[in-house]
Amino acid sequence: MSGNTFGEIFRVTTWGESHGEAMGVVVDGCPAGLELSEADVQHELDRRKPGVSELTTERKEADEVKILSGVFDGKTLGTPISMLVWNKDVDSRPYERIKNVARPGQADFTYQMKYGIRDYRGGGRASGRETAARVAAGAIAKKILAMHDIQIRGHVVEIGGIVAKEVGIEELKTNVDKNAVRCADSEAAGKMEALIKQVKAAGDSVGGIVEVIAFGVPTGLGEPVFDKLDAELAKALMSIGAVKGVEIGAGFAAARMKGSEMNDEFYIITAEPVENTESQDFHLGALRDLGGKQEGRIRTRTNNAGGILGGISTGAPVVCRIAVKPTASISKPQRSVDMAKMEEVELKIEGRHDPCICPRIVPVAEAMVALVLVDCWMRNESI
Amino acid sequence: MSGNTFGEIFRVTTWGESHGEAMGVVVDGCPAGLELSEADVQHELDRRKPGVSELTTERKEADEVKILSGVFDGKTLGTPISMLVWNKDVDSRPYERIKNVARPGQADFTYQMKYGIRDYRGGGRASGRETAARVAAGAIAKKILAMHDIQIRGHVVEIGGIVAKEVGIEELKTNVDKNAVRCADSEAAGKMEALIKQVKAAGDSVGGIVEVIAFGVPTGLGEPVFDKLDAELAKALMSIGAVKGVEIGAGFAAARMKGSEMNDEFYIITAEPVENTESQDFHLGALRDLGGKQEGRIRTRTNNAGGILGGISTGAPVVCRIAVKPTASISKPQRSVDMAKMEEVELKIEGRHDPCICPRIVPVAEAMVALVLVDCWMRNESI
Amino acid sequence: MSGNTFGEIFRVTTWGESHGEAMGVVVDGCPAGLELSEADVQHELDRRKPGVSELTTERKEADEVKILSGVFDGKTLGTPISMLVWNKDVDSRPYERIKNVARPGQADFTYQMKYGIRDYRGGGRASGRETAARVAAGAIAKKILAMHDIQIRGHVVEIGGIVAKEVGIEELKTNVDKNAVRCADSEAAGKMEALIKQVKAAGDSVGGIVEVIAFGVPTGLGEPVFDKLDAELAKALMSIGAVKGVEIGAGFAAARMKGSEMNDEFYIITAEPVENTESQDFHLGALRDLGGKQEGRIRTRTNNAGGILGGISTGAPVVCRIAVKPTASISKPQRSVDMAKMEEVELKIEGRHDPCICPRIVPVAEAMVALVLVDCWMRNESI
Amino acid sequence: MSGNTFGEIFRVTTWGESHGEAMGVVVDGCPAGLELSEADVQHELDRRKPGVSELTTERKEADEVKILSGVFDGKTLGTPISMLVWNKDVDSRPYERIKNVARPGQADFTYQMKYGIRDYRGGGRASGRETAARVAAGAIAKKILAMHDIQIRGHVVEIGGIVAKEVGIEELKTNVDKNAVRCADSEAAGKMEALIKQVKAAGDSVGGIVEVIAFGVPTGLGEPVFDKLDAELAKALMSIGAVKGVEIGAGFAAARMKGSEMNDEFYIITAEPVENTESQDFHLGALRDLGGKQEGRIRTRTNNAGGILGGISTGAPVVCRIAVKPTASISKPQRSVDMAKMEEVELKIEGRHDPCICPRIVPVAEAMVALVLVDCWMRNESI
Repeated sequence: MSGNTFGEIFRVTTWGESHGEAMGVVVDGCPAGLELSEADVQHELDRRKPGVSELTTERKEADEVKILSGVFDGKTLGTPISMLVWNKDVDSRPYERIKNVARPGQADFTYQMKYGIRDYRGGGRASGRETAARVAAGAIAKKILAMHDIQIRGHVVEIGGIVAKEVGIEELKTNVDKNAVRCADSEAAGKMEALIKQVKAAGDSVGGIVEVIAFGVPTGLGEPVFDKLDAELAKALMSIGAVKGVEIGAGFAAARMKGSEMNDEFYIITAEPVENTESQDFHLGALRDLGGKQEGRIRTRTNNAGGILGGISTGAPVVCRIAVKPTASISKPQRSVDMAKMEEVELKIEGRHDPCICPRIVPVAEAMVALVLVDCWMRNESI
Repeated sequence: MSGNTFGEIFRVTTWGESHGEAMGVVVDGCPAGLELSEADVQHELDRRKPGVSELTTERKEADEVKILSGVFDGKTLGTPISMLVWNKDVDSRPYERIKNVARPGQADFTYQMKYGIRDYRGGGRASGRETAARVAAGAIAKKILAMHDIQIRGHVVEIGGIVAKEVGIEELKTNVDKNAVRCADSEAAGKMEALIKQVKAAGDSVGGIVEVIAFGVPTGLGEPVFDKLDAELAKALMSIGAVKGVEIGAGFAAARMKGSEMNDEFYIITAEPVENTESQDFHLGALRDLGGKQEGRIRTRTNNAGGILGGISTGAPVVCRIAVKPTASISKPQRSVDMAKMEEVELKIEGRHDPCICPRIVPVAEAMVALVLVDCWMRNESI
Repeated sequence: MSGNTFGEIFRVTTWGESHGEAMGVVVDGCPAGLELSEADVQHELDRRKPGVSELTTERKEADEVKILSGVFDGKTLGTPISMLVWNKDVDSRPYERIKNVARPGQADFTYQMKYGIRDYRGGGRASGRETAARVAAGAIAKKILAMHDIQIRGHVVEIGGIVAKEVGIEELKTNVDKNAVRCADSEAAGKMEALIKQVKAAGDSVGGIVEVIAFGVPTGLGEPVFDKLDAELAKALMSIGAVKGVEIGAGFAAARMKGSEMNDEFYIITAEPVENTESQDFHLGALRDLGGKQEGRIRTRTNNAGGILGGISTGAPVVCRIAVKPTASISKPQRSVDMAKMEEVELKIEGRHDPCICPRIVPVAEAMVALVLVDCWMRNESI
Repeated sequence: MSGNTFGEIFRVTTWGESHGEAMGVVVDGCPAGLELSEADVQHELDRRKPGVSELTTERKEADEVKILSGVFDGKTLGTPISMLVWNKDVDSRPYERIKNVARPGQADFTYQMKYGIRDYRGGGRASGRETAARVAAGAIAKKILAMHDIQIRGHVVEIGGIVAKEVGIEELKTNVDKNAVRCADSEAAGKMEALIKQVKAAGDSVGGIVEVIAFGVPTGLGEPVFDKLDAELAKALMSIGAVKGVEIGAGFAAARMKGSEMNDEFYIITAEPVENTESQDFHLGALRDLGGKQEGRIRTRTNNAGGILGGISTGAPVVCRIAVKPTASISKPQRSVDMAKMEEVELKIEGRHDPCICPRIVPVAEAMVALVLVDCWMRNESI
């Protein structure tokens, strides 16, 4: 029944219920000697934490991380790193009233059926708050990856049908955290923000698409035939609460392409790549920069593969997109069932909820991609 | 580096290169006492095997399965079941000529970079032929699931932009294996077939979308927060060679929906469900579980969730769709690189290839869904 | 590199350094609905905790367990149970002085070589204090096993060459916790106690043998051919710090036996077993009492197998013994090496240490046996 | 229920019943580019195969290995290596007659109870013949280890109470395969041989002790706190059919030692080690020879630890001993139970059996130690 551990070598185990004592994670398999402080982790947690803009839930959590083991004199020991954030701004009252009602789109019904018991307060273990632990672990993974010049960038590319225009890598890196929706196209960001406020006012919610790109991934990560890099990414991303779809590279668009369109042709780099310009597009693999010498390397002209062939990284940017469903908790009235009385009821959900979870899923999706990459890195090294 | 085992309790390990001695699989964790014959497995292998229609590769393989262990007096022993099919119709000559060339869209480049060596004949381990082992294992999984009244049906819903219309469950079950494209909408099937022949004639290939539905899945399968049912399905399906995207239920469409549209409202079944009619739609959860008393159960009116909430099955049909890229092996000339000489070349791929892999991916995708479900079933039972 | 998780289904992950913030454990896979309080766990921790007699280290730790997740309204949720005990009576000064010296028989040298860094305070992760987390997890395992009428009893059977006489099951259950050495033979216990005080006074330490018996284990636990019950027990017990040997049933004595002596003959129980008498001996399998009806069952007359045949439990008591080495920390002068200066030194270890670890290993060994049995139980159920 | 896979990174899955089609193994995670031929594996299988001397069973099996995948042009591909040996000299008649009888000391009873079915022919999956697959996998592991100058040597040190005298490393290496009992002390070997013939004539069997030493193991292997090197070795060795005990270094003798006797003091090597002489003893760590420069390294004067401290290799020889029970199959009459008729019977076992399994367990135990070391090597490298 256990299912709260992720990774083979860099192994992450999370725990915690939304209104319980704390949310935590044990990271086992982190290399020894890595400089690590609570500040390193806090930075990522701050990107995920609630209550920072009008677009997110009003629950206020400082989400201050505590490292309880595995670090000594500012360096990792090679032993398990235990981290937690205490749950503080807990208000369980709105949940008391509806504790037996299966909220549509939520896990109340399935948890109750599977376990015969559940912590109904704030969604318990099924709360999005669970992802704080993922982000904390992901912060360590990112730090390791950065030592290998691998960088992970997530951004919102679509909300409620509003599609962001494609941007170059520099724009992506500098713009994303500038607006509350985490969209690199600032014009689209404005429209998205307006839409979110509008659906919130209407007691509703809205979904979107988040893209995560990993730059600098070397050739060779992923373990066929089952633990392929794309397979591991798909599992990692689909395990995030609100995600209903995952695609790599051209993704579902590939279904409408011909082989002659889809195949990325190989060529040999004849000179150092020119500096990034707007016309260059990481979706097309033009921006891979490990920092090292590029000349003489084999690469692809396009990147429909999303940086993965045969389940192994090609060296081009790894490009994933996830479909994020609209937040299930809405204040509009819904029909549902009281599971104790076994009768149908009308439900109006109170409590504090994000009208659109996309902006806050960005750091979570980045964390999951980081966990996959660091684990695949280590698995590839293990010979 | 090992990555050829799938599953936690019902554990499948596959092996074999396309032009090696054989393709095989060891199934560990199959319950004892199950009646099992080679015929049970052969039936599924026959659905996958090549050379059966104009739409598939001309390689002729009987793909006759041999069971080497784990079965005694027609029943499983609870010990590992070792199965293999010998590779017979092997013609490696077309590969000799291009053995150093990285075929676009294939794994030649990444295998060479990762392992420093590869079996270039027929794609070696990266060949689609690897999936024969998955289908053999899946046949056992399906047999176990059938004992619990769980049925898995795959079908092609889109090829090269031609979209099949939605069908009822009976149509789905009866129509799919009737045509060479495995599309339940016979009109669309005709168009798809024509398109495939056309791209084949042009030396090209085409992609599509395959849907797999599992009927009769009980409430409770899936192990949050990482080994959620949808996460395991995503990994299983994305690990199939040509798959570039996976979605569950509404999938990417959810990104454009409001919460009030997406949420599946719960109700209590007040009477036995009427017999299936055309208007009923498994996408909407109206056809859940075959057999068993329905009255008094909680279910959802719609099935945008695709039968999974919080990573746990709801009892509604589990609905997955995969984006299948166009076959990478095309005879149209392509630019690429000779990895030994490190020079650019023009490549014309010979050999025998499927112009559209969708029809043959249907049994493979079913097998992967079956492997996930039987493993999740066992994990859920393990208390 | 990760190695801090134990179990396949009932999965335990421990963390913590001896002089760090806390010692903790995450138990994943515990069934939902189990009544569980901190008191349940505290009882076992109290049996392990230091400072309770003259025979143990003088470090005083209340070792009060905190449950941080996975329990709601006094019942387990089926989600991960996070528990910790804070480290309080920490005195790192004696370790400062010798922080670069490889203490003989300790893990200083190997940790330093493997990780390039170590928390030298109190032995860091390699401290016996690490076992507090095992005992906490084991307390839950024991509670589940007790629901199935499985009881686990450990006792000291030899210290420094003083061998306890064999006792009946009732004597075992009632006597063990009565004396400070946890030996069921009170006469031997007295001699052992005297010996321990004597070696302590001499600045030395002494080893011994601990036996753990599991009563009521049903037939069928253990998963051949690698995850046999005895193989899992051997790993679990050998993973405890001071253990240098593990044997099952007749153990090393079997090496000197003939087949006709070693083989346990089977018979059919013809009547309910008589009540336990002193002459009955659990080593001989005569005391198996699942509580259920015994008549008509097959059992063995003797129990040289230690309750395991072919890696699967027979239904007789499962009998394991471990060789416990003398505590490595002794105050007698020893020759060693300063790893920083790379020069040989004479070492006199200060700090607080157990002159004989056997009494405190009893609850730890019980915990490891409990973890194996509950995991094997679940693995056996998972079909 | 699956339990037939061993290892985390170098992962071995075995299958096969004694009188089924074949015995086989899939080795996943073997590095690519390793030269490997069937002859490499055959050499080890020949050391294990039956029918080679009067001391072993008369079953004649060529045990010719076939490699079915994972090797191309004489080199490993990094893909799974599937190997098998066909079962040829199968005579199931002696088993027909007693197919419902639980043979004492065998797994008939437990398999029947656990699985409700079993292949009674030749012991089915529980046969010692299962170890052929382990030896085949171990041959690959040994080859990898040899590349790192790690050598593994097993020998019989005791049979039926006859104890071999300690020998130096050269004697060990040269003598072991010279006599049928695989004992490096030729005088003791003679007595052991006579004893085995005598017990065979009496229709009985006899047990013994086998020691395995790994030379050249570098410092740092093993992953605390659960996957310690000694813990993994204990599991690996205890998973072999007839093994009832495992000890490391001083083992059970440590229970009678004082800390001042047991602790291995550290020193710094001041000069290259002198050439091996008879007086040097690998049990004492004096013979570690990685081939590299020794001067300036830290080592221990003695090796009571058996080359492992805190679960991590010290660099001294890793020394394990296993207690091997007398073969359960004896022709002397025994009392037992017919499980179908549920009545007590007298049993006289026919068929072909080893009167003492120790000589043939030597290559099996070596294989298991090799599998552990190569896996721990890779786990240690994976950062």
